[in-house]
Amino acid sequence: MSYKKVDKHDIEYISSVINDSERVFVGENISEDYSHDELGAVKQMPEIVVQVLETEEVSKIMKYAYENNIPVTPRGSGTGLVGSAVPLHSGIIIDLSKMNKMLELDEENLTLTLEPGVLLMEISKYVEEHDLFYPPDPGEKTATIGGNISTNAGGMRAVKYGVTRDYVRGLEVVLPNGKVENFGGKVVKNSSGYSLKDLMVGAEGTLGIVTKATLKLLPLPKKAISLLIPFKDLDTAIETVPKIIKSKAIPTAIEFMERAAIVSAEEFLGKKFPDNSSDAYLLLTFDGNSKEDIEKDYEKVADICLKEGALDVFISDTDERQESIWSARGAFLEAIKASTTEMDEVDVVVPRNKVAEFVKFTKDVEKQFNIRIRSFGHAGDGNLHVYILRDELTEEQWHEKLNAVMETMYNKSKELNGKVSGEHGIGFAKKGYLHEAIGDEMINIMAGIKKAFDPKNLLNPGKVCQ
Amino acid sequence: MSYKKVDKHDIEYISSVINDSERVFVGENISEDYSHDELGAVKQMPEIVVQVLETEEVSKIMKYAYENNIPVTPRGSGTGLVGSAVPLHSGIIIDLSKMNKMLELDEENLTLTLEPGVLLMEISKYVEEHDLFYPPDPGEKTATIGGNISTNAGGMRAVKYGVTRDYVRGLEVVLPNGKVENFGGKVVKNSSGYSLKDLMVGAEGTLGIVTKATLKLLPLPKKAISLLIPFKDLDTAIETVPKIIKSKAIPTAIEFMERAAIVSAEEFLGKKFPDNSSDAYLLLTFDGNSKEDIEKDYEKVADICLKEGALDVFISDTDERQESIWSARGAFLEAIKASTTEMDEVDVVVPRNKVAEFVKFTKDVEKQFNIRIRSFGHAGDGNLHVYILRDELTEEQWHEKLNAVMETMYNKSKELNGKVSGEHGIGFAKKGYLHEAIGDEMINIMAGIKKAFDPKNLLNPGKVCQ
Repeated sequence: MSYKKVDKHDIEYISSVINDSERVFVGENISEDYSHDELGAVKQMPEIVVQVLETEEVSKIMKYAYENNIPVTPRGSGTGLVGSAVPLHSGIIIDLSKMNKMLELDEENLTLTLEPGVLLMEISKYVEEHDLFYPPDPGEKTATIGGNISTNAGGMRAVKYGVTRDYVRGLEVVLPNGKVENFGGKVVKNSSGYSLKDLMVGAEGTLGIVTKATLKLLPLPKKAISLLIPFKDLDTAIETVPKIIKSKAIPTAIEFMERAAIVSAEEFLGKKFPDNSSDAYLLLTFDGNSKEDIEKDYEKVADICLKEGALDVFISDTDERQESIWSARGAFLEAIKASTTEMDEVDVVVPRNKVAEFVKFTKDVEKQFNIRIRSFGHAGDGNLHVYILRDELTEEQWHEKLNAVMETMYNKSKELNGKVSGEHGIGFAKKGYLHEAIGDEMINIMAGIKKAFDPKNLLNPGKVCQ
Repeated sequence: MSYKKVDKHDIEYISSVINDSERVFVGENISEDYSHDELGAVKQMPEIVVQVLETEEVSKIMKYAYENNIPVTPRGSGTGLVGSAVPLHSGIIIDLSKMNKMLELDEENLTLTLEPGVLLMEISKYVEEHDLFYPPDPGEKTATIGGNISTNAGGMRAVKYGVTRDYVRGLEVVLPNGKVENFGGKVVKNSSGYSLKDLMVGAEGTLGIVTKATLKLLPLPKKAISLLIPFKDLDTAIETVPKIIKSKAIPTAIEFMERAAIVSAEEFLGKKFPDNSSDAYLLLTFDGNSKEDIEKDYEKVADICLKEGALDVFISDTDERQESIWSARGAFLEAIKASTTEMDEVDVVVPRNKVAEFVKFTKDVEKQFNIRIRSFGHAGDGNLHVYILRDELTEEQWHEKLNAVMETMYNKSKELNGKVSGEHGIGFAKKGYLHEAIGDEMINIMAGIKKAFDPKNLLNPGKVCQ
């Protein structure tokens, strides 16, 4: 791959499109933040950063880049964990975080149309004021909706409500050649050719740049109740989950957590969790339109848990109490990060009845490789977040152990019919593992799809299947 | 495109793979049924038909066809309406209707794995015996699940539950080169590269042949109630629908029907509908776990309808009574078909608040072109089924009027931000209209995707985007 370097003429043209010097950054004026995402390990500075405000700006810059063979990397708030927003071949970063307007709440079609830079936390706030609900609930609330769409983020409520893809009805997309197209729309059904909308969701900005999205909303459930359920150990806790699923109660979320993670979060947040005396916990939420509506379900689940060895069942039905539990859950990643020098993560997803086996396996790996590993995650949907911590290892020891540990874990996931990524994506960091998991044939098909959208390989090159 | 004709050697090889002469048909032994689907207007006989029983048979035949440049068309029960299963270039038909085994009901993961030839009506029966629920509910219950997946069929319950794609977790697929791959699986989340699973759903058998599917199930709602609501005219009925959606009640289904369709269905079935004295009706269903659970919703909706001009509200909460209503609804298509000499259909989907405008438009078209048009459909999800009837028109008059009427309707759909097909697909019959609706750029991308899967264009050629 040989790309053109950004020169004076390119800068002049791009500046003329943007016509606002405060939204174009070149050379030393580019913040170091643009060289990486939250993963940190992969770094590359872009040659020019453009903060766009309109689809037309994206379209013109993309068209110019395409004609002049300059690579383009789209970026939201940079909260990714696999290097998707890192400009591996330098070139142009199109920063979409300032394209952050709510465009239309359509109550007759139950849709919200918005720009890609709107933050996840703003969406829930906005729609809840209208008694509506956007169910996807990834832990990182400062991510943009564009980023969530590009990784097909899942979050806590996937057990009951599914993932981001299930709530994307339509997308406006700037193609690699600069043309603007609409995939899907406000329609509820669509069987009009290959589903380019579903292909774009989860494509990590390699097939087109999302410049507008129409999301499906639901009526807001009026009541939510959380159960915090302590167990004597993690095995017992997690092995209860398939029994809960089988009972046909439908929790909104089922998370598992260990004492160590809770204590870290307490320290990190400087406030106490309702209980930290047990080794392991399940945290469940139920939602519905009234307490009566959901109490049969949560009572059934509480009974199952007690029968399977739960030590107690704490029921939280006030907002304050639920807030204290879920804020601890939300702080796990930051707390773990603060406890070590560097880390990397495995975001596998396995069938729900294999979670216990996978978590047990990570404990064995921790011992076998003598490296600190922390995990928490979505027991109810099979998506684990396993963090491998560097602590005091030297650079060389760290890379050697990290590679070996990751290889071991991805092999185990494959053995359990799991997938490389549940919601963080492939980006740059997980490419090799994806290739190993799905093989040449499927990688070649993906590369062929990439070529159908981007024959010159200029949009976010070096990611996913390349 | 130049394909090889099937010769003696090909027949010998294929017969050796199948090793059962009762499942291989050649020449005059091929039933005329294989030359068409329910659309009827597009016909072509295959050179050889193979009724497969195993993935390995599909794989071997596909591999042989690929190496020998022979086109292959997969087929389920042939209930399609756009010619997707018609072997336009002759060659081999792989009939998957006898691959019809239930393989595994996994209650810990709430999934059903099955072969593609299982009929839709068998799925609901099977899972309901286990207190589970497969929500997609297209009208044609003798369709295979493979066909439903290949068209991304929607059905009546899409208002609340979504479409087939939302319930396909994993697919085993034979690629055009004969290799067997798995897309997705039992996992709830997946962000591991481009979503080939979602691409395969709705691809109408042009990208690969589905040989196994893993479906997502839900717990079976314990109670369902239907409301039959007469209105003085169709406009008033349909204009009430966006108000129902806006009220945040969530009906399972909202269908509209006119007196003429009901009378036809009564005649066709030889039994009476609960009421046929009004010009237009809305038919709604609500489901949940108890009467209390849903009565607030349906009472709210009944009040809205009465306020908007409904003449009455008939509540059906017995199975018998609901059966009599829904069996009439299920017979509309057959009844209309029996009332004319030939027909064609438009399966557009528009945003839900544009249904009234589109239906009014079809009435104008009926007058303007002096041709009989019947419509019914899914008012709650915006998917209309509009049937244009030939009656006594000559061949020439029919084609001339049909083309003009269709063109007019697809233009109107586009004007309302609708799509060419809500659930029947594109196949052969709607290719031109798809191209017109989405333009060269998107058609070229789709053709590029087709090429990534099928570089020699041997699997179901001449459909969707070619």
